Amino acid sequence: MKKVLNYVDQNYQRFLTDLETLIRQPSVAAKNEGMRECAQLVAKMMEETGVKAELLEVADAFPIVYGEIQSKKNPDRTVLFYDHYDVQPAEPLELWETPPFEPSVREGKMFGRGVADNKGNLVSRLKLVESWLKTKGDVPCNFKFLVEGEEEISSLHLEQYFEQYSDKFRCDGVVWEFGGVDEEDRPTITLGVKGILYVELEARGPVRDVHSANAAIVDNPAWRLVRALDTLKDQKDHILIPGWYKDVKPFTKEELKYLRAEPLHEKAIKEELGIKSFIGGMKGLEAKKALAGKPTCTICGLVSGWTGPRIKTVLPSKALAKVDFRLVLAQKPKALLGRLKKHLRAKGYGDIIVRELGMEEAARTSPSDPFVKAALEGAKQEYAKPPVVSISSAGTGPMYLFTNILRAPCVCIGVGYPYTRGHSPNENIRIQDFVKATKWMARTIHNFAKMK
Amino acid sequence: MKKVLNYVDQNYQRFLTDLETLIRQPSVAAKNEGMRECAQLVAKMMEETGVKAELLEVADAFPIVYGEIQSKKNPDRTVLFYDHYDVQPAEPLELWETPPFEPSVREGKMFGRGVADNKGNLVSRLKLVESWLKTKGDVPCNFKFLVEGEEEISSLHLEQYFEQYSDKFRCDGVVWEFGGVDEEDRPTITLGVKGILYVELEARGPVRDVHSANAAIVDNPAWRLVRALDTLKDQKDHILIPGWYKDVKPFTKEELKYLRAEPLHEKAIKEELGIKSFIGGMKGLEAKKALAGKPTCTICGLVSGWTGPRIKTVLPSKALAKVDFRLVLAQKPKALLGRLKKHLRAKGYGDIIVRELGMEEAARTSPSDPFVKAALEGAKQEYAKPPVVSISSAGTGPMYLFTNILRAPCVCIGVGYPYTRGHSPNENIRIQDFVKATKWMARTIHNFAKMK
Repeated sequence: MKKVLNYVDQNYQRFLTDLETLIRQPSVAAKNEGMRECAQLVAKMMEETGVKAELLEVADAFPIVYGEIQSKKNPDRTVLFYDHYDVQPAEPLELWETPPFEPSVREGKMFGRGVADNKGNLVSRLKLVESWLKTKGDVPCNFKFLVEGEEEISSLHLEQYFEQYSDKFRCDGVVWEFGGVDEEDRPTITLGVKGILYVELEARGPVRDVHSANAAIVDNPAWRLVRALDTLKDQKDHILIPGWYKDVKPFTKEELKYLRAEPLHEKAIKEELGIKSFIGGMKGLEAKKALAGKPTCTICGLVSGWTGPRIKTVLPSKALAKVDFRLVLAQKPKALLGRLKKHLRAKGYGDIIVRELGMEEAARTSPSDPFVKAALEGAKQEYAKPPVVSISSAGTGPMYLFTNILRAPCVCIGVGYPYTRGHSPNENIRIQDFVKATKWMARTIHNFAKMK
Repeated sequence: MKKVLNYVDQNYQRFLTDLETLIRQPSVAAKNEGMRECAQLVAKMMEETGVKAELLEVADAFPIVYGEIQSKKNPDRTVLFYDHYDVQPAEPLELWETPPFEPSVREGKMFGRGVADNKGNLVSRLKLVESWLKTKGDVPCNFKFLVEGEEEISSLHLEQYFEQYSDKFRCDGVVWEFGGVDEEDRPTITLGVKGILYVELEARGPVRDVHSANAAIVDNPAWRLVRALDTLKDQKDHILIPGWYKDVKPFTKEELKYLRAEPLHEKAIKEELGIKSFIGGMKGLEAKKALAGKPTCTICGLVSGWTGPRIKTVLPSKALAKVDFRLVLAQKPKALLGRLKKHLRAKGYGDIIVRELGMEEAARTSPSDPFVKAALEGAKQEYAKPPVVSISSAGTGPMYLFTNILRAPCVCIGVGYPYTRGHSPNENIRIQDFVKATKWMARTIHNFAKMK
């Protein structure tokens, strides 16, 4: 084990050079930019590491880069790494201090689109395989890599990939794509994610944008959209769609125990976001409960008519909103989509077009699972401070496919820290985190590989 | 007079070539595109026609192209043509059948941005001067041309120009920038315009767009904007800002007489706009009253967060709405801006930034004014069908500067027809209208010049 850890310490600069190569290849799924090129680059990196790589395909989807390496000594235990090579759009570009696809190292941090979410973790994990092979000539258990290209667009086809390739994906434990340390450098293990229902709402008016003098007699789709949106939530952030909370269960005693123990760096978060308070002035446990278990409804985007400078006096032809509903355990996105449509009809907005752009269920793994214990043990070995357990991320991923369908436990361990600015300009990781997280992962795998 | 009319008939093809030259020069005030180049081109065209031209300037404004020509025989009467060389942005470009700044003639129509609003009228009026000079060696009265560059952005500095140059602008009658025939080719004279208050409302949230997982605890400016907007109007299109209708007066008997007589081609309008009915199913006189005299509140634009394709899970940093309030006679934009701000504060949205982008009062000229009579007489001489009087356009312009400050009557006569698609893609005029309207103008001036 020591040789592996030393190898990481001695070679991490070279690992980071490969990470820079990967960042330089844009891979924006939402814009279909550089996707196949990036998939091929990831496959090439796998092969160079000693992992057998192939591109899996289903119709109209970005390919999955799938990799496998068998352990000679321990072929009965398999860990699967779930990562993704797609990244969020880099806009607004003017807010980046250095160009998003030209990685830049400053003050011990590497900046670039995807460096945290999720190319940093992918490279850390691939390089771990190399570290084992170069020092031991074998890996401690079988590894599988499932690196998809649609994570940032709600893993549109992952369910289809699971139907077609589920045998390939079987494993004894899944390492999730994100993870890291908290504000006080405590290693954090996250055991669940929220679900999502992402829709586009479109109201239509005249066949083209027309002179706004017509407003005296012509209905305005922007007004219809605004009014329809305003029926979805009340002022207290409570979703008004009938039955929305029907399947939501209260936290268990065990969950509440972990929530209480989990730190929340409220002041730091507020400073980072530039806000004075959380919604309704919430604090402490209430905020933690909201992050882990509150269903949300978010306007992610709005567009209608003239959005340029100064004045254009038009009555818009259409108005569009992108709305993201985060879901909690047991909420079923498909059923809720039906409730949303029914609600709009009932409120008189049946003409508004509802386009479903993505659906994922929430997922959670039990804190008492052996894989979780291996990860906690690894954290204690690597870090000075004790690990933190988070029962659920406020974010979303297709974890339910692994936990609910393959029945494999899933842990989130990674190279991140709270201010990576994932999805935002100036996304970054700290290089020290990259090195320590790679070693934490080595220890976790080492612990898990030898468990009976 | 007959010589002048013949000259128009014999030379209109050449007039249209000059109009094409003017359209080819983009002049989008909202985007500061080609503005000075266009002003210089207009001045050059004036000089070539025999009108003495100069650029008037005030700080931070697009220049006014000002032109003058004195009548030798009749130097005591002056008609001022108010036109503008700026045009609306051409977007959305993909809906144009031919490029907006490459004029194209098809089926007796000329297409191009600004061909109707307002370059067609400007060229028609300049060429009228030429027609007189070439046939008579003199003009029937003095002419002034006030061609501004900010009409499409609410004539931002015209009031300032009036403070500085009001002596230049004095006249006995103003011909307004727009006008034309109606759906049944009846010449239409419009005697007023609505006012406007154009504002930008901006709600602010976190310092940058952040991951929408934060929605559990972080307020979303797009929601705040939607909620604030939804307090401005009720479902019946009634503005809810206290005191908004305080100064609004009912129509006079004379106004109602003209409104009743004015045709409204409801079916044709609906077909053109691609809509099934007007707001609340209104019809006939009710719709005409709304167009001429209803204060409106229009969302002209909305933008926030991710507006591209597919999915981006962000909580936006800010949300922006462009809102246009059309005002009627006696409503004061400045006072109403104060009422809007007070309303937002009272509703708990005092944090929303209100930026005033343009203000103009409404204006009307009496149907019994001699200048109006000259125009009606001219219409009867030129057209087979009797003229229609419209007491007010549903649109807006800075007419109050002429009617309320210079105390000059103002008539709207021009080359347009109902489907010019002003402010929209495929803006066009019919060539037959260009020719007839130029002659109608000649007759109007001729009639007015000899009145005592």
